[in-house]
Amino acid sequence: MKDRTLLMIPGPIEFEPAVLSALGAPTTGHLDSTFIDAFGQALERMRQVFICPDGQPFVLAGSGTLAMDLAGANLVEPGDRALVVNTGYFSDRFAVLLERYGAQVTQVRAPVGGRPTLAEVEAALKAGSFKLMTVTHVDTSTGVLADVRGLAALAARYGVLSVVDGVCSVAGEELRMTDWDVDVALTASQKAIGVPPGLALLVAGPQAMDAFRRRKTPVANYYADWTNWMPIMDAYEARKPSYFGTPPVNLIWALNVSLGQILEEGMDARFERHRALGRACRQGIDALRLGQVPVEPEFAANTMTAPLLPQGVAAAELLSRVRAAGAVLAGGLHPEIRAQYFRIGHMGAANRGDVLATLGALEAGLAACGYEFEPGSAVAAASVA
Amino acid sequence: MKDRTLLMIPGPIEFEPAVLSALGAPTTGHLDSTFIDAFGQALERMRQVFICPDGQPFVLAGSGTLAMDLAGANLVEPGDRALVVNTGYFSDRFAVLLERYGAQVTQVRAPVGGRPTLAEVEAALKAGSFKLMTVTHVDTSTGVLADVRGLAALAARYGVLSVVDGVCSVAGEELRMTDWDVDVALTASQKAIGVPPGLALLVAGPQAMDAFRRRKTPVANYYADWTNWMPIMDAYEARKPSYFGTPPVNLIWALNVSLGQILEEGMDARFERHRALGRACRQGIDALRLGQVPVEPEFAANTMTAPLLPQGVAAAELLSRVRAAGAVLAGGLHPEIRAQYFRIGHMGAANRGDVLATLGALEAGLAACGYEFEPGSAVAAASVA
Repeated sequence: MKDRTLLMIPGPIEFEPAVLSALGAPTTGHLDSTFIDAFGQALERMRQVFICPDGQPFVLAGSGTLAMDLAGANLVEPGDRALVVNTGYFSDRFAVLLERYGAQVTQVRAPVGGRPTLAEVEAALKAGSFKLMTVTHVDTSTGVLADVRGLAALAARYGVLSVVDGVCSVAGEELRMTDWDVDVALTASQKAIGVPPGLALLVAGPQAMDAFRRRKTPVANYYADWTNWMPIMDAYEARKPSYFGTPPVNLIWALNVSLGQILEEGMDARFERHRALGRACRQGIDALRLGQVPVEPEFAANTMTAPLLPQGVAAAELLSRVRAAGAVLAGGLHPEIRAQYFRIGHMGAANRGDVLATLGALEAGLAACGYEFEPGSAVAAASVA
Repeated sequence: MKDRTLLMIPGPIEFEPAVLSALGAPTTGHLDSTFIDAFGQALERMRQVFICPDGQPFVLAGSGTLAMDLAGANLVEPGDRALVVNTGYFSDRFAVLLERYGAQVTQVRAPVGGRPTLAEVEAALKAGSFKLMTVTHVDTSTGVLADVRGLAALAARYGVLSVVDGVCSVAGEELRMTDWDVDVALTASQKAIGVPPGLALLVAGPQAMDAFRRRKTPVANYYADWTNWMPIMDAYEARKPSYFGTPPVNLIWALNVSLGQILEEGMDARFERHRALGRACRQGIDALRLGQVPVEPEFAANTMTAPLLPQGVAAAELLSRVRAAGAVLAGGLHPEIRAQYFRIGHMGAANRGDVLATLGALEAGLAACGYEFEPGSAVAAASVA
């Protein structure tokens, strides 16, 4: 059972009490009229949160990797060419996944902490004839933010579908599917969407649905096959009973509560709040004279921060001391630099106070590890950011 | 939000308050030592509940259909032959799913409400050279109970892997994987396991794992690939941190609570309690002179009952009146007889009082629909069963 130590990893995060209450409430039937209405409303709200008024939303029991499968398995046919804009571990995963479904994958890479330039991606788009391009909006392993707007515009210019892995971004980083010509965006519930883990979420725009309908071969993955789920999503949205597999009832009640809160805040305000949280955390880290994995400030995500460890300080010891001081942070994940950095999540229900408390705990942890810095500098810098 | 009306459909069901509390508790990190311990313990308990001391348990975010995918995608290679012992809608689904992964499927069928005889299955096993055979322990569409013990023994005799879809059976109907030579058993959380929907659960015995390790082709389904999840399950069981996809933390906390309750009751006592619940419900239905979908009493499941509607009574009206009287029941699902029957679930945390209350509500509903019967006869018959 969790105590009041703040959970400040890049998902799962701190959740709103109303969301947790909905999750733990007695379970309704999946064909109960109240549940049908809540699920239908959640699907409508998905379109608003992904800012894709004519998109097809999918909500399934699964992790973020299933959401990636929902894109890969349904859009790739054997022999299709795919371009992966690689910014870390989760871009690597998308490449492996697409190959599993028969894609010929080309990757545009950058050194860890960097991101391919638009010119490099355009050169690749020009050279190949790709069916789709994947972009990891925020690679949770590096905290690198991709320029989704620029990349999706390029893909559209070359007639290539853009698929955005928004696991660490949707409902946190600015993302406007329709305006930016993004064809598919996907996420998992435990990130900025603000619901405990267990839901794979995806919205497919009209061109992605067209590409799906033009398939000549069956989808290789049975559970992820949109054919099975489209009539179900349509029926719930039309407030009619239907059945393919039992939906994760409690998680969907919780999702509807969280989506309602997100829309009440408003997407513009939410994006701005995340920018402010990201800025505050980064300035706090800067004040401690710690480097960060993203090599340029404009490459850094707003939903998480990836500071480098000071020379001679081990992640395990630091994280344990920070935890003792009140905040749970995450270790490194990218295999090339795993032991050199750590990660702080600040998205969804996380607020400015959480960021200050976290930086305070980090200061305490660093001091206990013998790192020298000006006490109070991180929280002060974050506070005025 | 649910009121106190009893949820007596064949899943989701009424859940224990302690399970719901665990589900709605503040979320821990997936690498938190308390969560690692709870997940590790849940995996150990899975072996005890499936009665498979040397099995490999898998716990993933997903529905029961994903659990079927976990079996089909990992055990089938293109061209493999599979035998489906068909007792309803979910057996049909397994056949379609296996074909998706390249299996050549043979089905042994019986009329709706019946089940193939052991002799018919043996004749099929003798004629083909199958890699695996699937059995739906309780087909939720018909309430038909398969003779898993007899069927698995036959499969073993012919060197064929037996895969049991135990979605409506595990932790309710008697199932002893090791003793009965069952190679794979799978279920979903919202049935007799007693946890709200969102978890796909599977235990694979040693021969199934051997068959998996001997694969010559990659698993076609990325998310369901055991290769990705085996090291994760092993690590949690060894109480070590690991990561592939974020586990559905809250659902797993709830699972561990429910598995603990199940083992505290004891598997033998639990099987016997479900037999008593099934007997009570069936005798109540008999007293009302309603037929049942299973054509022989020994074909009837103990976790659910599938009564036929009286002549001239429509399911929608009856179920609405039963609901008004305090219990939610389910309509028909099998396409051939959908409008002719309804379904009552009585598994997991459901108790004798729930069955009596449900039969009482059914009596009230039938009376309101103008059906003539001796008032009180159903609850009286169930009470002495």
